[in-house]
Amino acid sequence: MEIPYKIYLEENELPESWYNVRADMKKKPAPLLNPATHEPVTLDELSHVFCRELAEQELNDQDAYISIPQEIRDFYKMYRPAPLVRAYCLEKKLGTPAHIYYKFEGNNTSGSHKLNSAIAQAYYAKKQGLKGVTTETGAGQWGTALSMACSYFDLDCQVYMVKVSYEQKPFRREVMRTYGANVTPSPSMLTEVGRKINEEFPGTNGSLGCAISEAVEAATSQEGYRYVLGSVLSQVLLHQSVIGLETKAALDKYGVKADVIIGCAGGGSNLGGLISPFAGEILRGEANYDIIAVEPKSCPSLTRGQYVYDFCDTGKVCPLAKMYTLGSGFMPSPIHAGGLRYHGMSSVVSELYDQGIIRATSVSQTEIFKAAEEFARVEGILPAPESSHAIKVAMDEALKCKETGEAKNIVFGLTGTGYFDMYAYGAFNDGKMVDYVPTDEEIAKALADTPKM
Amino acid sequence: MEIPYKIYLEENELPESWYNVRADMKKKPAPLLNPATHEPVTLDELSHVFCRELAEQELNDQDAYISIPQEIRDFYKMYRPAPLVRAYCLEKKLGTPAHIYYKFEGNNTSGSHKLNSAIAQAYYAKKQGLKGVTTETGAGQWGTALSMACSYFDLDCQVYMVKVSYEQKPFRREVMRTYGANVTPSPSMLTEVGRKINEEFPGTNGSLGCAISEAVEAATSQEGYRYVLGSVLSQVLLHQSVIGLETKAALDKYGVKADVIIGCAGGGSNLGGLISPFAGEILRGEANYDIIAVEPKSCPSLTRGQYVYDFCDTGKVCPLAKMYTLGSGFMPSPIHAGGLRYHGMSSVVSELYDQGIIRATSVSQTEIFKAAEEFARVEGILPAPESSHAIKVAMDEALKCKETGEAKNIVFGLTGTGYFDMYAYGAFNDGKMVDYVPTDEEIAKALADTPKM
Repeated sequence: MEIPYKIYLEENELPESWYNVRADMKKKPAPLLNPATHEPVTLDELSHVFCRELAEQELNDQDAYISIPQEIRDFYKMYRPAPLVRAYCLEKKLGTPAHIYYKFEGNNTSGSHKLNSAIAQAYYAKKQGLKGVTTETGAGQWGTALSMACSYFDLDCQVYMVKVSYEQKPFRREVMRTYGANVTPSPSMLTEVGRKINEEFPGTNGSLGCAISEAVEAATSQEGYRYVLGSVLSQVLLHQSVIGLETKAALDKYGVKADVIIGCAGGGSNLGGLISPFAGEILRGEANYDIIAVEPKSCPSLTRGQYVYDFCDTGKVCPLAKMYTLGSGFMPSPIHAGGLRYHGMSSVVSELYDQGIIRATSVSQTEIFKAAEEFARVEGILPAPESSHAIKVAMDEALKCKETGEAKNIVFGLTGTGYFDMYAYGAFNDGKMVDYVPTDEEIAKALADTPKM
Repeated sequence: MEIPYKIYLEENELPESWYNVRADMKKKPAPLLNPATHEPVTLDELSHVFCRELAEQELNDQDAYISIPQEIRDFYKMYRPAPLVRAYCLEKKLGTPAHIYYKFEGNNTSGSHKLNSAIAQAYYAKKQGLKGVTTETGAGQWGTALSMACSYFDLDCQVYMVKVSYEQKPFRREVMRTYGANVTPSPSMLTEVGRKINEEFPGTNGSLGCAISEAVEAATSQEGYRYVLGSVLSQVLLHQSVIGLETKAALDKYGVKADVIIGCAGGGSNLGGLISPFAGEILRGEANYDIIAVEPKSCPSLTRGQYVYDFCDTGKVCPLAKMYTLGSGFMPSPIHAGGLRYHGMSSVVSELYDQGIIRATSVSQTEIFKAAEEFARVEGILPAPESSHAIKVAMDEALKCKETGEAKNIVFGLTGTGYFDMYAYGAFNDGKMVDYVPTDEEIAKALADTPKM
């Protein structure tokens, strides 16, 4: 059967359930711990921060499938199933025998896959009768997605945006405002933790860790509010499994077996979502795949971090998570792939990595923009810097196939578009982009602050 | 048959030919005239400015179908067939019995329908063995589309960008540069006509008319270059007919007969492309539709202009066209819908309007941003200001149905996304947007300068 440029599943092929990879893991990800007692957090404790049903999903490592409510499926239909694209033009340009596919999540106004979880979280908040939600955002993709979701369900949306992104990406702010959200640069003076961080690190660029602390404080100090998060959490990976399920369904429809699966990894939401069903097959002994997580050299939690319990936020108010981490005080340079600046990695992804189910690599900023430009010129889509990490490694793998003559099926996640990253592209076009790699000392210093267990 | 949220045609349902509505017009659009002799331009004359095959298409008012070359169809497959979306959420929000559909052309990096003609024009330039092409761009959508198309066929791309857009939309410039184009603000000091306009109107914001003159001069004064244009021309409407053909095929597939068809109108490329096959049915006496062209109150060529021969550019170097015009010296206020600032209207659209096949209306800037915000919040897509003209009128028509109880099928063209228009959305969000309507005197003054025939 000839494979089209774009494989679109029908709306009735949209997954009816999310897939929870934890259910198929013999060794489960380590539980979240109460930061005061170091005991596993309870559902009641978590429900002070998250909506009840999301807290349940967070703790659920037993059920492999969790039904997607009809209201969420209806919203999904506005932009899903997302296309799985056969990169014919890129293959031709590279002269590779490999077959390259990418799952494109950028065809919605949030410009990324983040909307998949945003709408789920807004739905459960509405169902619980809340007034609104608070969150943090880095590059602004998550904040945009959440503002769209909240607007759809008529919820108040308060976004703490990492200061460097707030300044570098003013247009994202306007998108969020157009959808009715309130956006505050973080660290701000609105919260206790924000004031403290501003005092300790005057002029700081901010970090996702800071912004999380602020958003959590804002949620727990206002009646009728809960906190929502766009990555890292197991509930988010659960929602994002829709990416992997659709990808697998599209490949199956054309009888294609993936060999290599590649995703960029910041907090792990895209990667975890994309690979979940494939990792599940590996875990159940049904198939084998070469799964690669790609992270920036400037924020290399998997490749250079430690697998320990750590704080999820700079303010140390959240539960402790066991994860690959650079230390909650790690302050990445203001790299342009703002969505990949988090100091830690999803517990699920961390555990899969520790078990050897997936491997990881890191790439530098200038490399990824070079790959992004090459991709844009042949495939027509101007990619987000985050997504370009996966593009770079997919191109490398395809070039390896050119050497070996192997016709591997390479699948990668194209998480979003770069339309709000034109400052970064401008810096690249002007030859002014610099690479930053933290020293061993910098990482060791930040790691020294992990909690003593 | 239940209609999905998004109707995607298969790749093998992509039209194999463009449809040339002029072939079905008993009274043809008036011919282009040589500005010196006032005689119809010949193929040879036109071929100094345009590629030979495009010049042939420009003059061809006899052949109803012109085959789409395979290379162009292959490129189309990267982003076409474009979805026809059933606006279920908007219908629900408005409480209307009407069924609303929109043909969404924004799912490509140029962010609009412009790519449909850009790739065709680049293809013919390459086929003719040219080094490159020159063009003008207003909002930057056309320039972005052309830079993508030229990058694909490895052609040099020189873009003269209306100065106000160059300044208001710096990010568009970076997209074009990422695709390898040279972008110059117009009027520039690089061309004779640019220097003259700068001298006559110091500090001018520029206009499409100026930029066209500059691009034409640049094309005709360089060896191996031709000029290409993103709207107004009959060849462009021909290429854009792919929009209407897909729309009709998608509606036919579900047995839906359109009642009202709405498109925004600047130079006429989107409107002409969308409505062509429907107008053809009216012209052949096979069906009836209520077709509405929507233009901005600030640049109302159809609703307040005159149907006369006029200059297509400020520099008066191009052939004369008979069209609804505000006069080639008309300088629209720096409205945010930069793509709708042209002083004239496509000859084909003008003639269809004059024959009563379509009607026209105009809307103000603040109205359209209000509609845009409402649309974005329920349908999830942040629309381009240009497209929002059609949204506004589609919503008005749907609300009329609410009053009358009619379940009309309303179809409109959603030409693109507003991701590069966030300054404008910001002005709207801040309540700082103003409406501008030219006085009768202003229009009369500009019209006084049309050529005496």
